Amino acid sequence: MADKARLSLNQITTANWSVAEAVEGCVRHGVRSIALWRHKIEEAGLSACVRAVSHDGLHVSSVCRGGMFPGPTEAERRRNIEDNFRAVDEAAALHADSLVMVVGGCAGVPLEDARKMVADGVSELVPYALERGVRIGLEPLHPMFAADRSVLVTIDQALELAQAHDAREVGVILDTFHIWWDPRVEELIARAAGRILGFHVSDWLNPLPDVLLGRGLMGDGVIDNRKLRRLVEQAGYHGPIEVEIFNRALWDSDADTVLAQVIERFEQFV
Amino acid sequence: MADKARLSLNQITTANWSVAEAVEGCVRHGVRSIALWRHKIEEAGLSACVRAVSHDGLHVSSVCRGGMFPGPTEAERRRNIEDNFRAVDEAAALHADSLVMVVGGCAGVPLEDARKMVADGVSELVPYALERGVRIGLEPLHPMFAADRSVLVTIDQALELAQAHDAREVGVILDTFHIWWDPRVEELIARAAGRILGFHVSDWLNPLPDVLLGRGLMGDGVIDNRKLRRLVEQAGYHGPIEVEIFNRALWDSDADTVLAQVIERFEQFV
Repeated sequence: MADKARLSLNQITTANWSVAEAVEGCVRHGVRSIALWRHKIEEAGLSACVRAVSHDGLHVSSVCRGGMFPGPTEAERRRNIEDNFRAVDEAAALHADSLVMVVGGCAGVPLEDARKMVADGVSELVPYALERGVRIGLEPLHPMFAADRSVLVTIDQALELAQAHDAREVGVILDTFHIWWDPRVEELIARAAGRILGFHVSDWLNPLPDVLLGRGLMGDGVIDNRKLRRLVEQAGYHGPIEVEIFNRALWDSDADTVLAQVIERFEQFV
Repeated sequence: MADKARLSLNQITTANWSVAEAVEGCVRHGVRSIALWRHKIEEAGLSACVRAVSHDGLHVSSVCRGGMFPGPTEAERRRNIEDNFRAVDEAAALHADSLVMVVGGCAGVPLEDARKMVADGVSELVPYALERGVRIGLEPLHPMFAADRSVLVTIDQALELAQAHDAREVGVILDTFHIWWDPRVEELIARAAGRILGFHVSDWLNPLPDVLLGRGLMGDGVIDNRKLRRLVEQAGYHGPIEVEIFNRALWDSDADTVLAQVIERFEQFV
């Protein structure tokens, strides 16, 4: 059983909560880590967020998210990079373990070009992040997001991109929803040793209710989260485990009840 | 530009047509090959289908589909195998280039077990197919179908499964909708040389309207079908190219108009 002390509430799971409410929720339920989303940070103001997490001694496992590098024009790509600099600033202020990268899809630019723009964008971000002590976590997303969210879709592809940089600077984020289907998942997680900066869990419901908002609570779908957690531990990762569930029905429920369920399922299935 | 002579109408693209109507449609539009679905064969009766295609000199590029091997009980798996024997009989009677396998998902059985059941099922099917001169085409599906339709999700995984058998007996079916996202697609198509039994095209719309019924006409999405067609040709495949589009809006349209569009898009984008 995964130790509850490792559970981190990814804020999107309780999307109706503000940062302050999510922090209070974590304290109330004995959850020691949290992952914050940038649109929520913006709503609350960065310094208020910094005060909230430090007042309650919460650890920030990640800031979600930088990335979205591809763009059809140079001007657009510059704006994306500038926005990533701000994301690094936020991750630095919050002492987050990493800044999660959802690198962007290929809609609007040819696939090969999009991949190149991602590699270039990461390379431009790394020195800025290094100066501020922020680690970049490249998250391969499920291949069904290749058009709209991430041309980075497999662990080995993320590792290849990461390995152009120092392991202390750029690593990978492994999310069971995104990687569970891969026939090489065991081998690839082992190969990621030394580069794993984060681990996320949820479940794949069958049938899938929605591409974006259809993730399930652990135990409700087909993913063997416990097995994947063990593989990630064998590869040397023993940090926070984020529960990150995009699910419309959960968002429409009482967030306090959802967090209680999250903890129960975490202990039962992770 | 792909030669129209290579175009094969996968019957699901014009799902409202019976086999007879689809055959007549092909003749009317100068399409020389067709792929038939088993529920349509059943509706029409196998011998009527054989007469229809042979009367009009149509080539049958494939029969869709066998597979669906995993099952929670031995009895269920036996029924699946028996059903696959019937699928082989149909492919044999129609002189189809191959019987396409959608191998089945992992809902109901653990993922590793499902993969094993697939390998066992294929092994059991091969001698029966060999005796009847039918080739087995293993189709890797997009990873978003791993739970409900196919634990076979990448080209290398399909090749590994195929390579347990003679290349004249078991090969792979490459469908651009299922493989376009793969960062290793060039290398993997090259590796498939000598094992490619079929090639399917459609497009990935963005946003994706529906997981199952949201495929687009070539040119409406992000897939570079022409590039993938060339890669498949470089790997030695010069057979029929099936246009296989699961799309609710197309199904609700006049099938004759749809087929005309298919031909136009085939010549423009494949």
